[in-house]
Amino acid sequence: MIYADHAATTAVSPAAIAAMIPYLDTVYGNPSSPHLFGQRAKAALDDARSRIAHCLHADAKEIYFTSGGSEADNQALRTAAMIGAANGKRHIVSAAFEHHAVLHTLDALAREGFTVTLLPVPEDGILPAADVAAALREDTALVSVMYANNEIGTVQPAAEIGAVCRKRGVLFHTDAVQAAGHLPLDVQADCIDLLAISAHKFHGPKGIGVLYARRGITPKPLIFGGGQERGRRAGTENVPAIMGMAAALEEATAHLPENTVRLTALRDRIIAGLRAIPQSCLNGDAVRRLPANIHFSFAGIEGESLLMLLDSRGICASAGSACASGSTEPSHVLTAIGRSRALANGSLRLSIGEECTEADADCIVQNVQEIVSYLREAAHWNEN
Amino acid sequence: MIYADHAATTAVSPAAIAAMIPYLDTVYGNPSSPHLFGQRAKAALDDARSRIAHCLHADAKEIYFTSGGSEADNQALRTAAMIGAANGKRHIVSAAFEHHAVLHTLDALAREGFTVTLLPVPEDGILPAADVAAALREDTALVSVMYANNEIGTVQPAAEIGAVCRKRGVLFHTDAVQAAGHLPLDVQADCIDLLAISAHKFHGPKGIGVLYARRGITPKPLIFGGGQERGRRAGTENVPAIMGMAAALEEATAHLPENTVRLTALRDRIIAGLRAIPQSCLNGDAVRRLPANIHFSFAGIEGESLLMLLDSRGICASAGSACASGSTEPSHVLTAIGRSRALANGSLRLSIGEECTEADADCIVQNVQEIVSYLREAAHWNEN
Repeated sequence: MIYADHAATTAVSPAAIAAMIPYLDTVYGNPSSPHLFGQRAKAALDDARSRIAHCLHADAKEIYFTSGGSEADNQALRTAAMIGAANGKRHIVSAAFEHHAVLHTLDALAREGFTVTLLPVPEDGILPAADVAAALREDTALVSVMYANNEIGTVQPAAEIGAVCRKRGVLFHTDAVQAAGHLPLDVQADCIDLLAISAHKFHGPKGIGVLYARRGITPKPLIFGGGQERGRRAGTENVPAIMGMAAALEEATAHLPENTVRLTALRDRIIAGLRAIPQSCLNGDAVRRLPANIHFSFAGIEGESLLMLLDSRGICASAGSACASGSTEPSHVLTAIGRSRALANGSLRLSIGEECTEADADCIVQNVQEIVSYLREAAHWNEN
Repeated sequence: MIYADHAATTAVSPAAIAAMIPYLDTVYGNPSSPHLFGQRAKAALDDARSRIAHCLHADAKEIYFTSGGSEADNQALRTAAMIGAANGKRHIVSAAFEHHAVLHTLDALAREGFTVTLLPVPEDGILPAADVAAALREDTALVSVMYANNEIGTVQPAAEIGAVCRKRGVLFHTDAVQAAGHLPLDVQADCIDLLAISAHKFHGPKGIGVLYARRGITPKPLIFGGGQERGRRAGTENVPAIMGMAAALEEATAHLPENTVRLTALRDRIIAGLRAIPQSCLNGDAVRRLPANIHFSFAGIEGESLLMLLDSRGICASAGSACASGSTEPSHVLTAIGRSRALANGSLRLSIGEECTEADADCIVQNVQEIVSYLREAAHWNEN
């Protein structure tokens, strides 16, 4: 099998599993228990918090553990909205191609009286910081722009957007779920106030994520109860998963330079191969994209058929977000960058992993070429 | 070490770990991915959902996975409140000794315009169904009474309360976090509409729980985003933890009868031993309590000192809820059942596990006796 759906989820790495295991059945205490056995778990938790903070250039006090990226996005947006509302600011700027964890929370906030400006996204899939600056109003509480898009992989000018926001006194949240472990993240350099990441996108376990909230920003609880996470997130801390996340993020951060070089070369090899298919188009900027993301549309085919036939040949890929699978609507991301419904429906996302070889890359290209040809023939599609 | 703090958290059982491992690094696909690899994870998820439903006498469609008991409690209360509000009902009945996941959510709902009646609890720690019935009003949307108390272990008459609620057309939620795996649960027999459980209290992993919502009750999302959990809980499903939870709940359910007999005998042995300490009092009914819960107050001592000295001798216990540790206030549960501040501060919760032997039980008793005597002598406490 060639697994080319790492944007949907990844295998937990051996190092992350090794980091988790002792906390399942040996150091299994509750970090809130005052006895030494509980405090051993607490010490591990503190250690993981510091190590994760270090990877993000944050302070440990700015790290809040959540059940994943969606919860972190929800909490970040609600926190900024609440802070804004307390200051009479009820306007939020975001972009049309955000993940649903952001878009649907913004929908909820809109129902609660906030005004949301969803910026259009240019065809290259990169939102200019100038567009964000132009959308700011006196009553803007928050800008939420993802670090890298989860479908087409385009990397946004987070540092520029952050600088604009900081200068204008507007909070900046970024959904960095696809970026963490794949791009260097520096919350200070990028003037990020709130940030969400999810461990299972970088070979950590599912069910755990981080909300980073800059010092001075107090997260508004989504889940009420015990005083865990300094009173901002109730529920017994998921110590094993947190230890696994810390190990995975450190590992990804340590290998980032070499992985970036290797994956970028493989990515570009696949892109070159798929560009040779007539009437194909790469979605998103060719350079400013995640090192492991390849996203194409092919005229005249149904993406679902392409995926099924690839799957039957042992290649796991996707059309777009796994979170939105099952929907019959064309991808909102592809619609946002101006793709026609027909092209949006003929799309393919390949997100490769560290284990991908040149032979795998070539195998992917050859199979996509063959299947696209076959499907076009079967549909009597005429490329002119 | 004798670990007598199972109410705070438990070790993940070998069976649960074995059930988790394959889903960390082998069948690690995203259940929302349409390819076969993702669908293998989806099949596992469906299987776990059915097995968990079976343990609760529920239908698989009534099971929603959450990040734990606190999230499930929050979502249950908000769901019932929203349903009530839509019908003009904004009154909620609960009890003074609930877990903070319930109490603090009720506080939030009160700020949002709901009226909350917190019933007082008799000294035996058991809320009579008649008290609930008497508190119901025309505009009561919800009754929330825990299945078993997390500090003093008293088991509530859930079936009677459920019957009262069903008859009066009021939704009944129960926080069954301490009950699941320790008492037989039957949502149908007990007329339960909403129920929360947490895997790490019954030898499953941390970070995973269940919200049961009876057919016809649509949970209101706390976390917006992807369409997971039939649109009621966004975020990639935590498949490994869910598999671990299913294995742990099945294991606990299968061994429930024999564990109940064995633990009850050990519990009563410890209770008898601690009752021999002058000026001691058992908190909560002696019979209608969790098979593994022992909760005492001792006049003339500080619980914190008792716990520290027990800890130094290798016995892990607690004063009450781990979730509330660090608080300097006396336990709200002990206050609710009428314990004086002095007695509440001299309290000890022992929650034993399946591995507990008679020798362990006797060791606990002997050490508590010695330490209580020592602390009283050191404080020049005069029992008269």
